[in-house]
Amino acid sequence: MAPKTVDVHTHMYPPALISILRARQSVPYMRTFADDPTSGERLVILPAEEETGASTARGRPIGREYYDIADKIRFMDLHGIDISVLSLANPWLDWVPAGEAAEKARLVNDDMERMCAEYEGRLFAFGTLPLSAREEGEVVAEVRRLKGLKHCRGIVMGTSGLGAGLDDARLDSIWQVMEENEMVMFLHPHYGLPNEVYGPRAGEYGHVLPLAMGFPLETTIAVTRMLLSGVFDRFPKLQVLLAHSGGTLPFLAGRIESCIAHDAHLKKAGKLESRRNVWDVLKKNIYLDAVIYGDVGLKAAMDASGSDRLMFGTDHPFFPPLDGEEKWLSVTSNASAVRSALGEDTKTAEGIMGGNAVRVLRLDN
Amino acid sequence: MAPKTVDVHTHMYPPALISILRARQSVPYMRTFADDPTSGERLVILPAEEETGASTARGRPIGREYYDIADKIRFMDLHGIDISVLSLANPWLDWVPAGEAAEKARLVNDDMERMCAEYEGRLFAFGTLPLSAREEGEVVAEVRRLKGLKHCRGIVMGTSGLGAGLDDARLDSIWQVMEENEMVMFLHPHYGLPNEVYGPRAGEYGHVLPLAMGFPLETTIAVTRMLLSGVFDRFPKLQVLLAHSGGTLPFLAGRIESCIAHDAHLKKAGKLESRRNVWDVLKKNIYLDAVIYGDVGLKAAMDASGSDRLMFGTDHPFFPPLDGEEKWLSVTSNASAVRSALGEDTKTAEGIMGGNAVRVLRLDN
Repeated sequence: MAPKTVDVHTHMYPPALISILRARQSVPYMRTFADDPTSGERLVILPAEEETGASTARGRPIGREYYDIADKIRFMDLHGIDISVLSLANPWLDWVPAGEAAEKARLVNDDMERMCAEYEGRLFAFGTLPLSAREEGEVVAEVRRLKGLKHCRGIVMGTSGLGAGLDDARLDSIWQVMEENEMVMFLHPHYGLPNEVYGPRAGEYGHVLPLAMGFPLETTIAVTRMLLSGVFDRFPKLQVLLAHSGGTLPFLAGRIESCIAHDAHLKKAGKLESRRNVWDVLKKNIYLDAVIYGDVGLKAAMDASGSDRLMFGTDHPFFPPLDGEEKWLSVTSNASAVRSALGEDTKTAEGIMGGNAVRVLRLDN
Repeated sequence: MAPKTVDVHTHMYPPALISILRARQSVPYMRTFADDPTSGERLVILPAEEETGASTARGRPIGREYYDIADKIRFMDLHGIDISVLSLANPWLDWVPAGEAAEKARLVNDDMERMCAEYEGRLFAFGTLPLSAREEGEVVAEVRRLKGLKHCRGIVMGTSGLGAGLDDARLDSIWQVMEENEMVMFLHPHYGLPNEVYGPRAGEYGHVLPLAMGFPLETTIAVTRMLLSGVFDRFPKLQVLLAHSGGTLPFLAGRIESCIAHDAHLKKAGKLESRRNVWDVLKKNIYLDAVIYGDVGLKAAMDASGSDRLMFGTDHPFFPPLDGEEKWLSVTSNASAVRSALGEDTKTAEGIMGGNAVRVLRLDN
């Protein structure tokens, strides 16, 4: 069988969700601004994105690439991508009122499933959970239901969990059902860091600082909180796919491990005995996408978790080309990083470009 | 000449500063707490460290290793370190009232110089600037004075600059005099990130999250702000040594570069033309210490800036062993990461362990 190219990090807002976002008046929402109609329909997903009157800062322009599945297929064909594993982009459904959470999640997940079925064999999906529901039981029920959907291969999740982060003990029932059902959790950042950390001139630099630093750090903090709270000790088979090659986890793993080993408080609390270390978790519980835009980071990701645990991704439809080029630089730079890092080792490169995803996410049946 | 082992990241509070810190009643200060005299004298350097009544959270125990130069020499001998380039630890002198800033900086720098002279050939230093002074001219004057001190080889600096961060245009006169005098700037984090980013359970994890993530991110944000504001375009020969192997810069460089290249605001502002990219700056303006506690990160650091730009460090006297072992794990893990990453390439390893520092910081004359 010819090697497949698989994109595990590619977003889609199903039409069922678009209708909901268009009807909303507060973040997250979609709209055309009356004071700047030429900027077209825009998607605002963070409160900070509407703070200023400048249309460049009010969310992002949104076109068919965000919700039209035929457009996704065209993008895939253009870039030689055989299979995409779709996920809803942030903000997932954590803004939905508790009473409507379970229903909205089913609506979105069923719409995603319908899109996958339209292009049989080319599309799979990560489902979204009703994390704002009243009870964990409603979340657990949706995990079980997703397991029964033909094209669903895991769960996409932000870093806030049930509201208190991913080291919240109330998540145990959810980790358990995901582990039991072999549902990979795709952990993706959304909130970044408070704006104040970027200093008074941050606005001059566009979205560079929050996107380039806030997102990766949010992911790193979230997975480290899971580790420190013992999630991977209690659920040793839980599998987590980290966005953006782990944020900064591969690079900081040594420092995290050293800070743990030198922490007097953890030692006093007896937490340094029989713990699983960061490297062990990286090699047994963590998958990393290859959305890192360079061979330096990619090699560190391979060194940290193993090249059989890395999977190509694009982050489409974010980071479109600025000059209207047909092929997206954000895609080609991730693909060329794989070639550059692996050189003659085409077998390993093929694994990262698709083989690993096919095996791990069972995309061949 | 036998290869030397040089530690470029090693802190010392000169006795002249200790007297000042002992007399203070607000952060930063040193004191023995009356409600917990058994915990000994403690150094409190961040407001957050005195928020709780638990002595474990009130700063850190402080002993002779913080201010006794003979103790530093013993530590060096024990770990086979030939030369140390001392720097004051955070918080540098940014808390000094403006009117006293220049005088306090001279006092501290002269005391550091005196210590270096006591062990001729084994000690050099990075000086500290009076950044809270009324005028930039006072800072510039201290850079010139430091250049004349026999053992001073550069400047240690935090991320706050004159109060508005390192992308503050008022710093240009200071960058200029440092560039002209070939004074390397050792950039070191201090403030980390706001506590809220670590979530409600952060206290259970000791100091792991702020030390392992906040510090590296603070450094990464600071140097990226320098880059985005054009510091390295205006001062193309400025040399910056980044603490903790660049925080996360080597790993995130690809993402930073991609976020810049895809930023519509920067493009509109004409800032994407004729800019120096991150990789170019990494290879011409950035040195990295090798304080990264593992070969995965160390290899990424070498890949990013070149193995001739990496320099061994220990972060002594921080991260002491918890079990009273004589040799410090925080030191041996950094040294073994170099051996592990380089294997048979002992020449490159010797460069990182000391040769690079001797060459770059002119420690042989």
